[in-house]
Amino acid sequence: MSGEMHRHRSSLGTLLHHVHVSGPLSRAVLAERMGVNRSTILALTAELAAAGLVTEEPPAGTTGAGRPSLVVRPSPEVYVLAFDVAVDRLTAARVGLGGRVLDRRSASRSRLGVDLDTVVRKLVSMGRSLIAPEATCVGLGASYCGMVRPGDGMVRYGPELGWVDQAFGTELAKALDLGLPVSVGNEAHLGALAEYERGAGVGVPDLIYLHGDVGVGGGILVGGRLLGGDGGYGCEVGHMLVNPVDGRPCLCGSQGCLEAETGEYALLAAAGRTPGPAAVRAVVRDALAGDRTAAAATAEVGDWLGIGVANLINLFNPGVVIFGGMLRDVYEAAAPQVAARITRHAMPVSRERAALRLSALAGDATLLGAADLGFAALLADPLLAAA
Amino acid sequence: MSGEMHRHRSSLGTLLHHVHVSGPLSRAVLAERMGVNRSTILALTAELAAAGLVTEEPPAGTTGAGRPSLVVRPSPEVYVLAFDVAVDRLTAARVGLGGRVLDRRSASRSRLGVDLDTVVRKLVSMGRSLIAPEATCVGLGASYCGMVRPGDGMVRYGPELGWVDQAFGTELAKALDLGLPVSVGNEAHLGALAEYERGAGVGVPDLIYLHGDVGVGGGILVGGRLLGGDGGYGCEVGHMLVNPVDGRPCLCGSQGCLEAETGEYALLAAAGRTPGPAAVRAVVRDALAGDRTAAAATAEVGDWLGIGVANLINLFNPGVVIFGGMLRDVYEAAAPQVAARITRHAMPVSRERAALRLSALAGDATLLGAADLGFAALLADPLLAAA
Repeated sequence: MSGEMHRHRSSLGTLLHHVHVSGPLSRAVLAERMGVNRSTILALTAELAAAGLVTEEPPAGTTGAGRPSLVVRPSPEVYVLAFDVAVDRLTAARVGLGGRVLDRRSASRSRLGVDLDTVVRKLVSMGRSLIAPEATCVGLGASYCGMVRPGDGMVRYGPELGWVDQAFGTELAKALDLGLPVSVGNEAHLGALAEYERGAGVGVPDLIYLHGDVGVGGGILVGGRLLGGDGGYGCEVGHMLVNPVDGRPCLCGSQGCLEAETGEYALLAAAGRTPGPAAVRAVVRDALAGDRTAAAATAEVGDWLGIGVANLINLFNPGVVIFGGMLRDVYEAAAPQVAARITRHAMPVSRERAALRLSALAGDATLLGAADLGFAALLADPLLAAA
Repeated sequence: MSGEMHRHRSSLGTLLHHVHVSGPLSRAVLAERMGVNRSTILALTAELAAAGLVTEEPPAGTTGAGRPSLVVRPSPEVYVLAFDVAVDRLTAARVGLGGRVLDRRSASRSRLGVDLDTVVRKLVSMGRSLIAPEATCVGLGASYCGMVRPGDGMVRYGPELGWVDQAFGTELAKALDLGLPVSVGNEAHLGALAEYERGAGVGVPDLIYLHGDVGVGGGILVGGRLLGGDGGYGCEVGHMLVNPVDGRPCLCGSQGCLEAETGEYALLAAAGRTPGPAAVRAVVRDALAGDRTAAAATAEVGDWLGIGVANLINLFNPGVVIFGGMLRDVYEAAAPQVAARITRHAMPVSRERAALRLSALAGDATLLGAADLGFAALLADPLLAAA
């Protein structure tokens, strides 16, 4: 491919990316955002429309007088299948270009001893039922609650499910048999990317996303890029030691990890409750309603969470720290403890511009991140992937 | 400037960068490294030679038979002034293109209560005496033991010297009066960059450099780029909390910071020694020679250092962790403690490829990093900067 052709295809991807994350945009706005003139937008849009990726229509409320800038809209006929393997729950969804969840299936499941075959079989069954024969599936993405090798979706380590070196991505693709590979990412990595694209972190390239499932994970963006590290396993904030001297034992074999002090088990133990999908929210609700035991439990967990966040602020000088998954609930009740620890332990210069926010995508952050993995090839080269 | 002209100047900078970090290279090797043909190298080299930035000569040992590939050598007539403000010591050096320290001045000084004017006056006096009238000074760079604003070299926070918001870069440039700005960076950031360019981290883009002065600092490269974060203040590993429950008080006002548990004061207190420039090395020497008190002190500090390194390995999945400054000495004595903590607390997947190394540049890592700040404008656009 020539340099010019390469730039042209890259421009097509950029335009498609704009409408994918922002929804329908007028040609005028697209021209401004991309820094090109309207005739270029016209040509690019025509190509994308011919490939069935966008439609053009007059903006809502147009009366017919004058010549309003046409609105470019992502095609509702183009979608991905997104999968989310959390500790308590399996989810599959059809997600349209534009990032809307069009349909979904979900199943709760037991926590331990679930093998690869069982998980893949359930996901395939849910995924198949979501296929829309009249529309075009352009990709497959999956989120997993553990450490994932980026190249092939091998789960290297997922202690909550007892998985070590399980070929999740390869096996899921094979079983789905749709002629498409499955891109797999760590759930917190994907949550971070989704919050940056369309959530609480839009426009903030130095971003930390903390995700509480049963474990605690992190996704960290440095200059707008996911911190992968040497092998793609970076951001393991859940196993940062915050209480090395007499910390709670962690599933990883260590003790005093952030996950051990702030995860579901720690909160429920402190509150004297039994684990279960709705248990964390019940503690938080009770704490906010004035229940003393529940409030003491969220305060204790919030204190450790604050130490962890202070460390991350010192290390990353972020523009925003986003609390997602069950940590979104915890932070709602424990914001004062978190703030106090940050003030005490984070350097003033490091924290002066760091905002603390709740996840805007809430329960769908990881799923939407998985969907974006599925859309990645299309957005990199729209004509090739749509062909 | 046209796109083509821009690419041409960028190629000139790339060639100059190669000989700056690797020393003299044959045209053949340059052609291979840059992926261009020899006639392109010939043309680029001719331009750089005309500007006085490189010389060409037959390789050593050539007899005159055949046509050996000429060797391109960085000009010895092109240099920067580099400055290093450490807690105990001020250094200034003339560093030639190619990264060799050609001459240096150094002065020890008292630790606290040293104001900006005094430091600037001493640096200017040392710097002036290093100027080589027959050669060309192309830039000025400085390393500072605290948090530095990248744009203008403002020291935002330097607790060891008691500096808050001191306009170090601007004042040093004004006082030197050489018609050149001074680029200032944090000492550990610069050490990391220098080790990556020409030290223990060459070829390892996910790199952690830990620098022990009196305090402890970090420089972290993610995908070959310094982790700056939102304001350029990232990598504050020294204030990562490793012992929050009953840690030693830290100069920053917190307690149990990595710096408080592994810095000079912690080591000397554990060993029952008096602070001073050579005191750390004496403890390490004694520990290696079998002195029990000294060995217990290095083991205790090494234990906390290992916790900090384990956390960093979990967070960054680095290819290498480099121990510099006084932590280079500490690691020599405490490697077993560090290794044990990493094994216990870092995830196997995160640590499987992480090498642990001593700084290769030792006492000159921060100074050479400062020199590279000074060379940055020249390497970005050789003809403009040399004009």
